[in-house]
Amino acid sequence: MKRIKIGLIGFGTIGTGVVKILQKNSAVIRQRLGASLELQRIADLDITTARDVTVRRELLTTDAAQVLDDPEIDIVIELMGGIEPAKKFILRAIKNGKHVVTANKALLAEHGDEIFRAAAEYGVDVAFEGSVGGGIPIIRALREGLPANNIRGIFGILNGTSNYILSRMTVEGGKFEDILKDAQAQGYAEADPTLDIEGIDTAHKLAILAHLAYGKKIDLKKIYTEGISKITPLDIEFVRELGYKIKLLAICHGSEQEIDARVHPTLIPDSHLLSRIDGTFNAIFLQGDAVGPCMLYGRGAGMMPTGSAVVSDVMELSRNIIKGISQRMLALEKETSKKIKIKNIQDIHTRYYLRFSAVDKPGVLAKIAGVLGRHQISIHSVVQRGRRTRGGAVPVFMLTHEARESDLQKALREMHKLSILKARTVFIRMEESFLKTE
Amino acid sequence: MKRIKIGLIGFGTIGTGVVKILQKNSAVIRQRLGASLELQRIADLDITTARDVTVRRELLTTDAAQVLDDPEIDIVIELMGGIEPAKKFILRAIKNGKHVVTANKALLAEHGDEIFRAAAEYGVDVAFEGSVGGGIPIIRALREGLPANNIRGIFGILNGTSNYILSRMTVEGGKFEDILKDAQAQGYAEADPTLDIEGIDTAHKLAILAHLAYGKKIDLKKIYTEGISKITPLDIEFVRELGYKIKLLAICHGSEQEIDARVHPTLIPDSHLLSRIDGTFNAIFLQGDAVGPCMLYGRGAGMMPTGSAVVSDVMELSRNIIKGISQRMLALEKETSKKIKIKNIQDIHTRYYLRFSAVDKPGVLAKIAGVLGRHQISIHSVVQRGRRTRGGAVPVFMLTHEARESDLQKALREMHKLSILKARTVFIRMEESFLKTE
Repeated sequence: MKRIKIGLIGFGTIGTGVVKILQKNSAVIRQRLGASLELQRIADLDITTARDVTVRRELLTTDAAQVLDDPEIDIVIELMGGIEPAKKFILRAIKNGKHVVTANKALLAEHGDEIFRAAAEYGVDVAFEGSVGGGIPIIRALREGLPANNIRGIFGILNGTSNYILSRMTVEGGKFEDILKDAQAQGYAEADPTLDIEGIDTAHKLAILAHLAYGKKIDLKKIYTEGISKITPLDIEFVRELGYKIKLLAICHGSEQEIDARVHPTLIPDSHLLSRIDGTFNAIFLQGDAVGPCMLYGRGAGMMPTGSAVVSDVMELSRNIIKGISQRMLALEKETSKKIKIKNIQDIHTRYYLRFSAVDKPGVLAKIAGVLGRHQISIHSVVQRGRRTRGGAVPVFMLTHEARESDLQKALREMHKLSILKARTVFIRMEESFLKTE
Repeated sequence: MKRIKIGLIGFGTIGTGVVKILQKNSAVIRQRLGASLELQRIADLDITTARDVTVRRELLTTDAAQVLDDPEIDIVIELMGGIEPAKKFILRAIKNGKHVVTANKALLAEHGDEIFRAAAEYGVDVAFEGSVGGGIPIIRALREGLPANNIRGIFGILNGTSNYILSRMTVEGGKFEDILKDAQAQGYAEADPTLDIEGIDTAHKLAILAHLAYGKKIDLKKIYTEGISKITPLDIEFVRELGYKIKLLAICHGSEQEIDARVHPTLIPDSHLLSRIDGTFNAIFLQGDAVGPCMLYGRGAGMMPTGSAVVSDVMELSRNIIKGISQRMLALEKETSKKIKIKNIQDIHTRYYLRFSAVDKPGVLAKIAGVLGRHQISIHSVVQRGRRTRGGAVPVFMLTHEARESDLQKALREMHKLSILKARTVFIRMEESFLKTE
């Protein structure tokens, strides 16, 4: 039976999960693969801290070169994260003729083209199922399950930390800051949570999915990205009464000519499955022109789920090694080298939830409605309640019909000059385009 | 650019969808494959009826041999359905060295081992993504997305017709017979709906999924199979009040030594995503030991969704042809030839919903409870309402704690000898095992 030799760089949480799966599930892996996977070497700067798995001492090294330059190693798994030295290491592995498995979404979103170009040049494969959606096999679904489709839309809950915080805010009614602190204490959020809560991690993942769906490079900087740190219990409670949930959604739809790609808190109707994705779970809802609507759901992060995705990639590449081939899937770089046009956030058309902090005087609602009307924004429904907040302002909640973002922003700027508002107006976009072909 | 030649046998609904996708999406297929797919010939007994797609007249033949024996054809797509002559045709294609794509779940569930053995012998591949879950890439998810997992459970809504009828019964409160008739009129149910509504089609699909999950042959006859034709509006309404939905569920859990594999109407808690799968949609909820819970959702049937799955298989096999390889995925026959032990339905342990039609006399409930108690069945909750049905019986609704099926059946037989019941007792199993690792 053939033995495939694996080198691992990065022995953190996911790396530990990978080693556990390779040990614990070796029987089923051997049976399904017709070959065995052998961990040849593990590199990490820290090889002394105890992990949740036992490995032979001689496997461990602090020198990445012992993985990258070992001629016996067939597949290098990169799980250190970050841009450098991960990028340098991956390129060196590729140049040494090794196949690469990575879960490094930031690196792929920012420098994927350079890595895929190198892989094409050196005739090796780069697999990255673990980079999006943890254990959910979404990369395979897009590339191999639905390749006969023109993808019309991708709508993803792609960050477990944000979804956990929003879910708890919805259930408990607590404040963002308090729940974030608790999430950090419980290990559901990092000490520096910026990447997760500000939508940056979600944008990285969206860039990868959109590249696969549309076959063109995505300029990460053009993806409008807004996080959840400004969401208040008041907004969550009010949209819930209207039959909506707020989720941090990665949105991408359009054709190969131009796409709308953005990440922001989004109102989703209760009737839609995406509104039911709670806690640290992820889900990706797709629309294909042949398959129609399709959704994949599962744990979006964590030692074992992401480990499952990484080992599935190792098995995928091993099947090629066993058959003596590579680049069975076209390298992404080859599919097309053109960048896709991404719509400016000012040009999108969508519906909005608005919360005004109005001064408590007669005629204010008429003024608000007047400004909106002058900017072609028509009101779907409005609720003003008696309760006054501490600052003496009255909250006015509104849902609009579809409007152009630039019109809305102009209207809000104009309104704020009229001294009828006590605080910044909250606006949250509503997404309904995924309902269209259902 | 390489041209892969395709032959199609069976130009019905799915066949038409396949041809439409090959025509309409040829650009994206070519881009992703780096090769073009060419339809060389289409065989069907009926080549005169107009289809929803235009093909050149000379492609059509009534003679399957013109596909099976054409030396230029690389891949044969079988979409005629049924056991024979589909089986004979597939075996002939295999012997002629052709790769095969099929969506024929009945054939694979009953004679899969013979087909996979032949494929292994002749060095070709058989792909079958369209056989389960329509366009949902569930076969690929199991074989390639989650191969590093020991699968602990599969819970599937796999028949669109049954789910459509149950969903409408739930929303409208109508009777099974009436909604079935309407579903037939609207094309959501066949003229002879037996395979769908009696759970047979679901059992076929479960046999295929369980074979993939456990790597052992499944004896279709050992899968306990019960359909939805006895479900009444009264039961649907009552379980809804308790916070449950009734779904026709394919259930399979256990280890490689012994599994519990069955198909029957099932109470699912409202809090679970599977309870939200409505209409003709399908969903497969999995539990893997590494990935944890995972769900795939989409259209379970139809021209374009199943066509999407079939063309994805053609692309999968084409990638192998381009690289000059075959059997990159182990043929199922090779993985193991042993049959897995399937638990007898009498030996399962689960919770039950019971509806007794009790005679309206004092002491009847005490007698029912007494019989249950003597058979180790403990009652979770019971509701008896004033309303009397036409036959003079009073409905008594009950949820039990977990009990052994043989005990329940013995208790029901004993009870029916006591002249306290006016009609057969309705019992519906409840599934909660998919909640366990969440």
